[in-house]
Amino acid sequence: MSDSGFANDFGRLTILGLGLIGGSLAKALKQKNAVREVVGWGHRELSLQKGIELGVIDRYSLDLAEAVKGADIVVIATPTLIAETMLQKLVPLVPASTIITDVASVKGNLLRAAQRAFGKEPANLVLAHPIAGSEQSGVSAAKADLFINHRVIVTPTECTSKSALEKIEAMWKITGAELSRLNVDDHDTILAATSHLPHIAAFALVDAFAGDPAQREIFKYAAGGFRDFTRIASSDPTMWRDIALANSPALLKSIDLFSEHLVQLRAAIAAGDSEKLLTTFTRAKQARDQFAEVLRQRATNQISHE
Amino acid sequence: MSDSGFANDFGRLTILGLGLIGGSLAKALKQKNAVREVVGWGHRELSLQKGIELGVIDRYSLDLAEAVKGADIVVIATPTLIAETMLQKLVPLVPASTIITDVASVKGNLLRAAQRAFGKEPANLVLAHPIAGSEQSGVSAAKADLFINHRVIVTPTECTSKSALEKIEAMWKITGAELSRLNVDDHDTILAATSHLPHIAAFALVDAFAGDPAQREIFKYAAGGFRDFTRIASSDPTMWRDIALANSPALLKSIDLFSEHLVQLRAAIAAGDSEKLLTTFTRAKQARDQFAEVLRQRATNQISHE
Repeated sequence: MSDSGFANDFGRLTILGLGLIGGSLAKALKQKNAVREVVGWGHRELSLQKGIELGVIDRYSLDLAEAVKGADIVVIATPTLIAETMLQKLVPLVPASTIITDVASVKGNLLRAAQRAFGKEPANLVLAHPIAGSEQSGVSAAKADLFINHRVIVTPTECTSKSALEKIEAMWKITGAELSRLNVDDHDTILAATSHLPHIAAFALVDAFAGDPAQREIFKYAAGGFRDFTRIASSDPTMWRDIALANSPALLKSIDLFSEHLVQLRAAIAAGDSEKLLTTFTRAKQARDQFAEVLRQRATNQISHE
Repeated sequence: MSDSGFANDFGRLTILGLGLIGGSLAKALKQKNAVREVVGWGHRELSLQKGIELGVIDRYSLDLAEAVKGADIVVIATPTLIAETMLQKLVPLVPASTIITDVASVKGNLLRAAQRAFGKEPANLVLAHPIAGSEQSGVSAAKADLFINHRVIVTPTECTSKSALEKIEAMWKITGAELSRLNVDDHDTILAATSHLPHIAAFALVDAFAGDPAQREIFKYAAGGFRDFTRIASSDPTMWRDIALANSPALLKSIDLFSEHLVQLRAAIAAGDSEKLLTTFTRAKQARDQFAEVLRQRATNQISHE
């Protein structure tokens, strides 16, 4: 099968919530002729009209039943907490032959919502998390190459249909993403550590020292370290409120583990324990340098794929 | 006075500890003909020889008394904790007519060390902190433009000689730096918040989740947020051990304030307090966006000065 076409293999795709991620997925699949039709649904008609203008979707409906009718794949691409209620709304509308998938940053809350909504885990539900984003948001920022060499984690359960799982993995591969499978708990634990906790810590640090506008004079003296460390505190507050609540069990554990290590470093500083500080900083630097090497290799792969 | 020369106004400069910062200062001053001679001192003769090859210094001595003899300005550019003992060693060697200055990241410990060494705060001591650095270190990485549009904070006390203070400020202005005056306590408090605490938090976070090599699989799933947040955990462990110990009083207060805010966010997450999370994240984002604006203006100034 050549890059020039996938013979519309994925049929009719309905995107619920047309923003950066859903829009970029649609663009990538359309570029490779992998879908016959893309239908948009949302509350903001202007975004949907924009989606048509930009060629991201072929048509839209403000009516959910109408939008998902005849869909082969329904992608829930709404904000995280709204995704839970979308599952409930889809119960009477989507037959078992339609695959339901999503793009949210947390998986456990959606699995639990699906169990509540459907009474059991539906075989046609394939939860997925593309780890990609941009400072920009909205369908206007959508781009077909957003997922190239970015990781997409799918989190199947024992109930997930093998063919549905493989279909969703194949769909993401077309976008250029690298696929991984994790179980739901591992996903939420790993993302809490590598993404959710850093965001919470950055929000906490900026709020502690500059939450009061009278204190913001300190920015005058802040350099590159502060800039990098706090960049993610400029992230969308609503999105991160949703993620913090959706992943609270794993996130609380991550915060506690981080706090323990911070308390230990605090104790070493207070005690003037030079050796403990040097050992910890050295171990952390080795780990971070190894991560930098992983990033370099990833960048090299990216270039060789272009 | 034109850019082409400062008529060797600053006479003979002796740099104690020839690395990135001391070397870059020497280079910048020599480029503007602001010094008659630069003398290097250190333990590692190879670095000093390299300094001569690169034209950063004119001559060197491994003997401290010889190196500082006849100096108009002595710049302590050794690692932070060693700077304390350097002050002690300078007592019998440097007359009151020679200005002593430094480039360390913490000021309170040096002020206390000076009080111990000299019996009182010497009028000819001008503590200063250029907020500049690079991933590279050592005299080979020295560059004349390192300080352009970077901030240099001088921290005079009531005992500091006005003429010595103005001389050191004039010296830094030649390098293209932006000067600020702060008192020692304010300097150490602000730097603890904007630099030292972020480093400690990044070290603690990386160590918590990847200190054990068996856990490093999580890097596979880490994205841009983790990369930026933890970049400073790749910093030099010895330098940061020194800074953590040198600035422990202010750093402990910063850690505690940060921890309080983290505990509050933790409680809000545990309680599902959506409004508290949204309010805090929004306030932090506004502050961080304002900082991004400060950075943009700084970058614009940099371009217009080039």
